[in-house]
Amino acid sequence: MTDRKEFRDLAPPEEAHAAIASLDLDPEPETVPLDDARGRVLAERLDAELDVPGFDRASMDGYAVRASDTFGADEADPVALDLAGEVHAGARPDVEVSEGSCAEISTGAVMPPGADAVVMVERTDERGENEILIRKAVAPGDHVMLAGADIAAGSRALGPGTRITPREIGLLSALGVDEVPVRGRPTVGIVSTGDELVRPGGDLDSGVGQIYDVNSYTIAAGVEEAGGEPRLYPHAGDDYEEMERILLEAADECDLVLSSGSTSASAVDVIYRVIEDRGELLLHGVAVKPGKPMLVGSLGGGAYVGLPGYPVSALTIFRTFVAPAIRRAAGLPEPRTATVTGRMAVRERYEEGRMRLMPVGLVESGPSETADGDAVDAGETLVYPVDKGSGATTSLVEADGVVEVPPDTSYLAEGETVTVRLFSPDVRPPSLLGVGEDDPALSRLLDRLDSPRYLPVGSREGLRRLRDGVPDVAVAAGPVDRDVDAVDLGGWTREWGLVVPTGNPADVTALADLVDRDLRFVNRDTNSGLRTSLGNALAELAERRGVERHSLVDAVDGFDLTVKAHESPARKVQTGSADVGLGLRATAAELGLGFVSLGSQDVVIRANPTRVDKPGVRALEAALDDVDGIVATLDGYETR
Amino acid sequence: MTDRKEFRDLAPPEEAHAAIASLDLDPEPETVPLDDARGRVLAERLDAELDVPGFDRASMDGYAVRASDTFGADEADPVALDLAGEVHAGARPDVEVSEGSCAEISTGAVMPPGADAVVMVERTDERGENEILIRKAVAPGDHVMLAGADIAAGSRALGPGTRITPREIGLLSALGVDEVPVRGRPTVGIVSTGDELVRPGGDLDSGVGQIYDVNSYTIAAGVEEAGGEPRLYPHAGDDYEEMERILLEAADECDLVLSSGSTSASAVDVIYRVIEDRGELLLHGVAVKPGKPMLVGSLGGGAYVGLPGYPVSALTIFRTFVAPAIRRAAGLPEPRTATVTGRMAVRERYEEGRMRLMPVGLVESGPSETADGDAVDAGETLVYPVDKGSGATTSLVEADGVVEVPPDTSYLAEGETVTVRLFSPDVRPPSLLGVGEDDPALSRLLDRLDSPRYLPVGSREGLRRLRDGVPDVAVAAGPVDRDVDAVDLGGWTREWGLVVPTGNPADVTALADLVDRDLRFVNRDTNSGLRTSLGNALAELAERRGVERHSLVDAVDGFDLTVKAHESPARKVQTGSADVGLGLRATAAELGLGFVSLGSQDVVIRANPTRVDKPGVRALEAALDDVDGIVATLDGYETR
Repeated sequence: MTDRKEFRDLAPPEEAHAAIASLDLDPEPETVPLDDARGRVLAERLDAELDVPGFDRASMDGYAVRASDTFGADEADPVALDLAGEVHAGARPDVEVSEGSCAEISTGAVMPPGADAVVMVERTDERGENEILIRKAVAPGDHVMLAGADIAAGSRALGPGTRITPREIGLLSALGVDEVPVRGRPTVGIVSTGDELVRPGGDLDSGVGQIYDVNSYTIAAGVEEAGGEPRLYPHAGDDYEEMERILLEAADECDLVLSSGSTSASAVDVIYRVIEDRGELLLHGVAVKPGKPMLVGSLGGGAYVGLPGYPVSALTIFRTFVAPAIRRAAGLPEPRTATVTGRMAVRERYEEGRMRLMPVGLVESGPSETADGDAVDAGETLVYPVDKGSGATTSLVEADGVVEVPPDTSYLAEGETVTVRLFSPDVRPPSLLGVGEDDPALSRLLDRLDSPRYLPVGSREGLRRLRDGVPDVAVAAGPVDRDVDAVDLGGWTREWGLVVPTGNPADVTALADLVDRDLRFVNRDTNSGLRTSLGNALAELAERRGVERHSLVDAVDGFDLTVKAHESPARKVQTGSADVGLGLRATAAELGLGFVSLGSQDVVIRANPTRVDKPGVRALEAALDDVDGIVATLDGYETR
Repeated sequence: MTDRKEFRDLAPPEEAHAAIASLDLDPEPETVPLDDARGRVLAERLDAELDVPGFDRASMDGYAVRASDTFGADEADPVALDLAGEVHAGARPDVEVSEGSCAEISTGAVMPPGADAVVMVERTDERGENEILIRKAVAPGDHVMLAGADIAAGSRALGPGTRITPREIGLLSALGVDEVPVRGRPTVGIVSTGDELVRPGGDLDSGVGQIYDVNSYTIAAGVEEAGGEPRLYPHAGDDYEEMERILLEAADECDLVLSSGSTSASAVDVIYRVIEDRGELLLHGVAVKPGKPMLVGSLGGGAYVGLPGYPVSALTIFRTFVAPAIRRAAGLPEPRTATVTGRMAVRERYEEGRMRLMPVGLVESGPSETADGDAVDAGETLVYPVDKGSGATTSLVEADGVVEVPPDTSYLAEGETVTVRLFSPDVRPPSLLGVGEDDPALSRLLDRLDSPRYLPVGSREGLRRLRDGVPDVAVAAGPVDRDVDAVDLGGWTREWGLVVPTGNPADVTALADLVDRDLRFVNRDTNSGLRTSLGNALAELAERRGVERHSLVDAVDGFDLTVKAHESPARKVQTGSADVGLGLRATAAELGLGFVSLGSQDVVIRANPTRVDKPGVRALEAALDDVDGIVATLDGYETR
């Protein structure tokens, strides 16, 4: 109930659009060279300043004639004309065509005085030195493009607002225009806030909580895509004077200032105060999820928008509210591919009282037989929510766009049709959506496919999702206790065990060492197939010793210390923060670490039975036929 | 029959595709800074080289606690914890959380040693100086993003071939990647041939038949759009040594060389010989219209394609055969918006025995009521052939793309569904298709509309096309003798007459002067409304004099000398090549010329009755409501 009350104070989305539309982002028009004009927008009408062509121009190779001389000529009864001379393209005619004569002429040449038509060379014969037989009658103007016939001086050539593509470049060239008056690109300053941000390429000190700046670069690319010119400003911490200085500098130099980056309440609070003191705050918080921290206002006479701190939220709010304003200011239309329509692959509950911009992934169902038997339909686009928690940057590439869920919605039904606003017009559904275990052979196999997407959620979670029908394939490693209707596409086996430091200094020899000795261990999470195999091995050991499994588990120091990816435990061993990690022989070999084998497990790729004909699944199957080459390069790997 | 035979010697289109596919255009991969990576294609797989986040990170503002200390806490029965200190984002924790204590923590800060969860600040209260009441139980890991939870070191981040959009820029930033390995862009050298070509911006001498180079710039823009990097070489004439030198230089520096520009047989012949001598000719001529002069081969070890000389032909062949090869070499997918489906607006005959790439324009029919009464459908895309003769550069902006018509087709029926390959993925149907008279008020009116297309075909031809149902509106000037079912949207009147030199040196006073005196006259063509009014005025004069109209026409020196646009006769007067031109008072005033009025004529905008609800037509109607401002600026113009 507290939440609902709070959202009543937030502005509805339409108000946020209106507030941004009320800001003036319009840049000054500019002039660019013709070869930089592609993609720009014409600032004013261009009329032709000259006739194109500028002269009466032959449009065929042949003979320039007086048409009246050819009347009556045909194949059976050609007319003979005296050859008076010749005219080449790019040369001034030095011949005149009088009655009874003609001149040889090349395509593109100036029509000589006296001539009013051209007879194609194919309809003529030379007879003797200086006589030409004309085998076809022509009318005045035949095979001649009159001066100005293409476009005449003074005519309207291109209107204001025209988007310049190669076609318009062609017409501008014909008119001799080498400097094109175009709409300016709005300059967008990006001020990222937060003491913890480091620019990519810089050194990161994780111990003091530093992270790389994600939003500045993501939003800068979004600004570029919307037709603006991004300008990155130095990071501002939450010091009032510094923030004020940087924001005012950006406002002075840019048509629009965006702040972005920090999720810290104190930094947001400092920005808020700067805008209140030095500008005007039009709007604080929008009733969308995620839009609570959005600010709209003016600063030093310029436009200002504050974006949320989390990457997916920042890109979502940018795409929804800011990008359209940048496009308008640049004179660009809404891209045609900005949205796709699909059907919900799963049911999604939602009861929050404000509009939700729900990040979603796309997956294509692929072709399937239609009701009448042999014909095949193209399949449809399925939409599933992506919600990995707000701070995840991987959501950026795992989601394709957002669905607007109205505030009064309590759920979206499975199969419901929804419109997805894509993160970029370039975004396409992946060719293949896979989920499951992470594995180095799989990673290389995926390299051979065109634009697959793979979510390393672990074997157990992968099979659960396959059963729910969302992904095309699930990859499961180790013993599988879940019954899923699926088609086995193939796979391999991998040797698993304990990764130890180089040279195995603690002389670990078996699983029992973990239980009986004082060794710091790093585990994988319960979704991982490695963890399942480890659990089974501990259960066997317990049975051999005649004790309860949990007593062995309790004896392992770090059994509950789980890390995310297949290399993570080995990396903890490598950095010395653990003595033993759960992992693969291949990983140990690659990192130069020691390894104690505990067995081999199957890695199996299982396909959604309704998707086996999808091109991406077929491509995976074809790549699997040739997996031996990959398996041969990985220690402890074998084909099944 | 000769043509049919000839086409049997030309290669089928598939062979041309295969010949180009056999050439190696692949550029070397390169490394670009992150902020230049948008739109590029990843050259190799990128694995995460670090954990993101690099530390256990608080994802809420609140208090870092040991979860076990909060068990049982609720609103009614909060738990009190000692405040041990605070941790800010971007700082190393200098506090440890022991049993019974907590630390204030900001979003993004490093979790202090001992703590395993965060309680949101909203669920806490301060009590006294150093005591915090916790009103909610949390589980280990709540509101904490563990190190590597977003993406773990060693995991697959992005696969080879990934197109880099703002989303991928975000993930790369998070991984600290500031230099991105990308596929190279194939360098495409463009050699334009023809002595008559002048670069836009240069001085043109029409007397020697010079024209601006259209193809080089059009194709360069097309290369850029396809993901290549165009490089323009100096013009080559048809001198063998010069052509050889330039072509070999381009072949040495580029992944692909295109020649383009000349329509002259001798220049094409010279190129042909250079390729035969210094490279290998794979294919000469393709059985498509227009593709007869196309060449495919290799030169100095590199790839070579020769394009036809006429602009629309060159762009068509480029888009059909060359652009896909450039995209493949750049690793880019076929753009999703490269084709649209529509229905033929008219019947089109075709019997030529080779595939035709027919240039077409698009027009949208606009919304209309569906059969059930009040619902409105979105309309459909209609397709009409654009054939202004091969040399016209205006066809570039009047056509939107091409339809592939198979060799065995004898006609395309009206209403037949066709697929249009667009000249650029940016191309959209115009908002409005107008045809008819050219007029300066109309030109300014069109400036107020968003992306209209107007074909100045004259009043008579405009009304004919309106009757055939293709355009949305036709603009007719002067007396109209054609009965067309149309809706009158509005218009204005304009004063017409004889344009004479400044100060009217020959003292022209009336139409009779043209007939009775020795004055060189320039007329408009028979489609023009000005010409119709002139013809009527001559007929009246003949009647007054009691003579035949044609005797007066014969007495006018230059009656048959017709030029294309409304300003053209006036410009002939201005340059001294005529004494009198047919034209408007507004034109005379603008060019500072004299004027003898012969009357006023209506200019009426008439709409296709089925298109009155199309948004573009409605926008025109709205702009017409406000036409007074335009009319007021033009001499001799009045609202109707």
